[in-house]
Amino acid sequence: MLVAQVVKTPSGTQLRPIDTLRESVRLAAGLTDNKLLGNDAYQRGLTAIRRFGERIRDFDPSKVRAVATNTLRVAKNAPNFVRDAEEALGFPIEIIAGVEEARLIYIGAAHEVSAIQGNRLVVDIGGGSTELIIGRGYEPKLMESLYIGCVSHSLRFFPKGNIDAHAFKEAELAARREIQVISGAYLKCGWKQVIGSSGTARALADLIAENNFNGQVDEGLTMGRVNGSSGLITREGLRAMKKHLLKYDHISQVELLGLKDDRRSVWPGGLAIMIAVFDELGIESMEVTDAALRVGVLYDLLGRSQHDDMRFVTVEQFMQRYSVDREQANRVGQHAADFLAQLPKPDIESRSDNIALLQWAANLHEIGLSISHNGYHKHSAYIAGNADMPGFSKNDQARLAALLIGHTGKLGKLANNPSFKDWRMLFCLRLAQALCRGRSDANLPKVKVSEHDGSYLISLSKDWANEHPLTEFSLQKEAAEWERIGRPYKISLK
Amino acid sequence: MLVAQVVKTPSGTQLRPIDTLRESVRLAAGLTDNKLLGNDAYQRGLTAIRRFGERIRDFDPSKVRAVATNTLRVAKNAPNFVRDAEEALGFPIEIIAGVEEARLIYIGAAHEVSAIQGNRLVVDIGGGSTELIIGRGYEPKLMESLYIGCVSHSLRFFPKGNIDAHAFKEAELAARREIQVISGAYLKCGWKQVIGSSGTARALADLIAENNFNGQVDEGLTMGRVNGSSGLITREGLRAMKKHLLKYDHISQVELLGLKDDRRSVWPGGLAIMIAVFDELGIESMEVTDAALRVGVLYDLLGRSQHDDMRFVTVEQFMQRYSVDREQANRVGQHAADFLAQLPKPDIESRSDNIALLQWAANLHEIGLSISHNGYHKHSAYIAGNADMPGFSKNDQARLAALLIGHTGKLGKLANNPSFKDWRMLFCLRLAQALCRGRSDANLPKVKVSEHDGSYLISLSKDWANEHPLTEFSLQKEAAEWERIGRPYKISLK
Repeated sequence: MLVAQVVKTPSGTQLRPIDTLRESVRLAAGLTDNKLLGNDAYQRGLTAIRRFGERIRDFDPSKVRAVATNTLRVAKNAPNFVRDAEEALGFPIEIIAGVEEARLIYIGAAHEVSAIQGNRLVVDIGGGSTELIIGRGYEPKLMESLYIGCVSHSLRFFPKGNIDAHAFKEAELAARREIQVISGAYLKCGWKQVIGSSGTARALADLIAENNFNGQVDEGLTMGRVNGSSGLITREGLRAMKKHLLKYDHISQVELLGLKDDRRSVWPGGLAIMIAVFDELGIESMEVTDAALRVGVLYDLLGRSQHDDMRFVTVEQFMQRYSVDREQANRVGQHAADFLAQLPKPDIESRSDNIALLQWAANLHEIGLSISHNGYHKHSAYIAGNADMPGFSKNDQARLAALLIGHTGKLGKLANNPSFKDWRMLFCLRLAQALCRGRSDANLPKVKVSEHDGSYLISLSKDWANEHPLTEFSLQKEAAEWERIGRPYKISLK
Repeated sequence: MLVAQVVKTPSGTQLRPIDTLRESVRLAAGLTDNKLLGNDAYQRGLTAIRRFGERIRDFDPSKVRAVATNTLRVAKNAPNFVRDAEEALGFPIEIIAGVEEARLIYIGAAHEVSAIQGNRLVVDIGGGSTELIIGRGYEPKLMESLYIGCVSHSLRFFPKGNIDAHAFKEAELAARREIQVISGAYLKCGWKQVIGSSGTARALADLIAENNFNGQVDEGLTMGRVNGSSGLITREGLRAMKKHLLKYDHISQVELLGLKDDRRSVWPGGLAIMIAVFDELGIESMEVTDAALRVGVLYDLLGRSQHDDMRFVTVEQFMQRYSVDREQANRVGQHAADFLAQLPKPDIESRSDNIALLQWAANLHEIGLSISHNGYHKHSAYIAGNADMPGFSKNDQARLAALLIGHTGKLGKLANNPSFKDWRMLFCLRLAQALCRGRSDANLPKVKVSEHDGSYLISLSKDWANEHPLTEFSLQKEAAEWERIGRPYKISLK
C-alpha cells in the first residue's frame, strides 16, 4: 500500500509518497490446480488487507483505489474473496486486466525514474504474470501481460525446492517461449532505457549488488546501490547468480548475502524469467524501481479527478476501431442520459460513475455490428467483455458488457443473473434505443419517465403515438418484455 | 431444384436453365416452440429431397450444390436432418448464413432481370427470413437477412387462420419494426429498380394481376404478366388485396382467383410483410422474378470452378479489417501447406478444398488479436464462427473456427468434439505456428513430416536443434500436447 500527498506546483501536479505498507502474502502460491484460492492464502490475504484498512479507515472514498492483479484474475473464487476483502478494507477493490496493469505500471515507472529522450522498456515480473511495456515520456505505446510469474514459475519448475541445471534450463526456455511471441514487435519498436519495476527486480538487483555478482570492486558504489533508491541488474550479474544457485541441490541450502526468507522460494523462478527476458530481448543492463504499479494507480486516480480519465480515451478509440455510427450513438446516449436524470438519484458519487457508464454503453452498443448484424448485441458484449480496455477494471467491463447484451432483445438472461444490478440504466438505454431505431432526429417524441417501487412508467402524447404507430408498437413490445421478467412497466398516453 | 447448362460465348459464360423441380414443403411451419423440426415436416422434407436426388443421381459432385436456409439455420436438430437429407440426396448439403443467402439471391436476381444503370434493391421474402439487398450490376453492396418470413409470420399473427384488421395491423407493424433497423442505411444508399425475388413475390404479383387489383383494364397486359416470366407488384395492388382479405373472417373462406391451396395459409403473413416493406422503404412498385436463390447458387458454383471463389475475397477483406500481420500469416500458411503436401493424400477433390481451408485458417489465425492478446485464438474462432463471411457456408465457418481455436494452446476441447475431423490440417497449422513464433524467416529449420496409422513423426537436424534450444523446446511442448490427447507424436533428430 502506498499513501501519497498531492503536491501542486505551477508546472504540474505531483504525488509525494508519505507512507508505504508492504506484506508478502504470495497469493499466487495459494492457487490450487483447479484454480481456486486455497484457504491459507485466502486468510493471509484478508489479514493483510484488514491491517491496511485500519491505516486508511478515515480516507475519503474518492481518494482510495485498490486493485487486484493476476491471481484474482484467474482464481475462480475471486468474487468471494473480493467481497470479503472489500469488507476488510472498507473500500471497493477492482480486479484489473493484464494490459491495464501494464499501463498503470508504465505510468508509475515513468514517474519514478529519470526522464529520458526516446523509448523506455519497462519489465515487471510479478507473482503470476509479467508485464512488458514500451513507452515514451508518460505515454505507454506497446503493452503486454504474459502468463509467467516468479511464484507460478518456481512452483512449476522447482516444486519441492530441488535445483538442477536441467530444470533451470526448462524454466528459462518456457519463459522465453512466452516472450518470443512479442519480441519481434518490441525489438522493432526499440528502446533507449530498460527499467525493472517489481519486487522481483528489486530483490535481484539487491542480491547482485550485495554479493558482488556484477564483478565490481568499487565497494562504495555497490553499497550505494543497496541502500539507495535505484539499483542495477546486468547480464553478467544474472549469469553469476545462476552459477551460484546451481552449486546447490536444494533452495534451502543456498547461502547468499541478503536473501530474505520470504523471497527464497520464489527466487529461482524469478531469476529464470529475468534471464529469459534478457536473452530474448538482448538486454545488457536494467535499472530498477519497485513501486511502479502502486505509483501508477495513484497517478491514474489523480487523473480521473482532474477529468483525464483514460476510459474516455479507450471508448473513443473503440468507436473508431469498430466504425461506430456516431450520430446514432450520440442520439441514443443523449436520450438515455435524459431519462436517467428523471429517475430517483442514488448517492452523488456512484451517480456520476453511472452517467459515464451509461454514456459508454450508448457509445459502444453497436460495436458488434463489425462482426455481424444478426445478434450484434451479443457480439458487442463479447468484445466489451474480452477486449483490452485501458482504464477499465474487469468489473467495469463486466457491467458494460451486461448493458450491451441487454440493450435490445430478450431480458431473460439478465433477469437470471443475480450480480446484475444496473436495471435503471438498462431501462434508460433500452428505451432510448427503441425510440431511436429510425436513426433520425426527426419524429422523436417527448417522453417522460418515472419509477415507483421498481415499477417504470413512461408518458407521451396520445396524438403523437397515434401518428407514429410503429414507435408505439415498439414501446408496447418493450413494456411486454419487462412485464415478462416480472418488472411492471406502464405506458401512459395523454 | 434448378438444373442448368453452361453456355460459353465469346463475351462470357451463361447458365441456361434446362429443368426445374419445385416442391412446397413448408419446413418453417414444422418448427416447434423449442426450435425442433417436427416429424411431419422432417419426413416431408426427406421425401422431396429423395425425389430430387433421383433426378441428379449421375451428376459429377463438383457440379452440384445444395443449400439450406433459415429453417435449418435455427432448427436444433438440423445436424440430424442434414445428415439424413444428404443420404437421401446423395450429395453434400450446406447450411448458409442469412447474409450469404442474401448475396446469392442478389447474384441470381441480377442475372435474371434486365440490366440497368444504377442501384437495384432486391427483396426476398422466404418462409422464415427476409433478405434485402442493394447492389449495382452483379455486385451486392448492402446485404441483410431479417428474422421475418411468410410462414413464421402467418403462424404468429394468424395462428388459426382467423383474419381481422387488428391482427393484420400488428403483423404489419412487427415487420416494419424489423425493417426499420436497416431502412435508414438503405434509403441513404438509394435505388433505381426494385425486384421481388421469392415465391411470395411471384404469388402476390400473380394474384394482383389475375384479380385485377392493380385497377388496370388492359386485359392483354394483365394476362401477359400472369403467363410471362415477369410480373409487377404495386402499392395500389397490395392495398386492394388487403382490403379484399379483410372482408373475410377466416382464411379458408377467402375467394380469390388463382389462390393455390398450398399458398393460402401463408399468404396473409407474406402480404403483411410485403406491405411493411413497401411502407417502410417508400416503394411504389416492384418487378418480380422467382428463382433468384437457385440461380445465384449456380452462378456462384460456376465462379468457383473458374477460380472466382468469393471466399478468397472475404478472407482478403477480413485480413484488412482486422489488420493481420501479412508476413506472419504467409509464413505460417506456406509452412503449413508444405507440411500438408508431405502427408497422405485424400481424394483429389477434398484435397484442393483442404488446401484452401488451411490457407484461410493461416491467413485468419491472428484476427482475434484485434480484440485482445490474451486468449486471442478464442477471439479468432469467435469472429470466424459468428461473422458474416460471404461465400462461406455455416459448415465452412465451423471448420475454420475449429482450426483457429485449436491452432495453439490446449487440444482437449477439440479432442472431445466428435464432429472435428480436420486433425491432419490442425497438425500442419500448429507445427507451422510453433516454428514461426519468432516472426522472422531467419532461423527456420528444414522439417520433414510424415504420418503412419494416425501417428505423426517430424524430423529435423540434430545440429540445428542443438543450436536452437527454444524451438526444440516448443516442438517438445507440441509433442506432449498431442500425446496428452492420445495421439502419438514423435520428434526425430538426426
